[in-house]
Amino acid sequence: MQKINLNQKLSLFNEHWKPHIVGELNGQYVKLGKFKGPFTWHHHENEDELFLVVKGRFRMDFREDGKDREVWLEEGEMIIVPRGTEHRPFADTECHVLLFEPASTLNTGNVENEFTVKELERV
Amino acid sequence: MQKINLNQKLSLFNEHWKPHIVGELNGQYVKLGKFKGPFTWHHHENEDELFLVVKGRFRMDFREDGKDREVWLEEGEMIIVPRGTEHRPFADTECHVLLFEPASTLNTGNVENEFTVKELERV
Repeated sequence: MQKINLNQKLSLFNEHWKPHIVGELNGQYVKLGKFKGPFTWHHHENEDELFLVVKGRFRMDFREDGKDREVWLEEGEMIIVPRGTEHRPFADTECHVLLFEPASTLNTGNVENEFTVKELERV
Repeated sequence: MQKINLNQKLSLFNEHWKPHIVGELNGQYVKLGKFKGPFTWHHHENEDELFLVVKGRFRMDFREDGKDREVWLEEGEMIIVPRGTEHRPFADTECHVLLFEPASTLNTGNVENEFTVKELERV
């Protein structure tokens, strides 16, 4: 049983949009990601997804009740995206994010494209 | 779908050792707690538990391989306590902590005493 320092883990990789696993509990992964630019629109059929800003800020674009919406998330702020909700994170400058989600979650959900990461790495 | 500001939520309650629910996903709760002093020794039969320090620091005492151990956790550090592991958080000064654990988790696990909180509140 060892503690995990988020900034130390974040120093171990540089890729954008490629979250790395830093912990596992109750069938869920804790991941750290570096966001920059726009991600791809997608949704997850069966998984709710949590995003917590560790450093910087990003905008979550999403569709709710048939309308396009957006919310900016700053350090110390989080959002839970329910399963089925179309969403797309966007970061104007690099943003460090902690994610909680089921181990089964594919980063691009129902979409498969250049952003898709099938083999997650651990740091 | 609304963002959740951890510090704003933390400003809404003052009790120590009484985590409040701030989010729910995939059958898990996200809680915020204020720790001060020693908690009670306990374990959870079926739940792994995550502690992430938002402000301050605390010490996690635990028993592993029959030995008593401890680890200090500072801001931006987290620890995952696996099910079955005896543990006791201790904070020398007030510490703000984010917890992530199954909705079924009782704060004192296998123990019932003055620290036990059966009716969780949301903020």
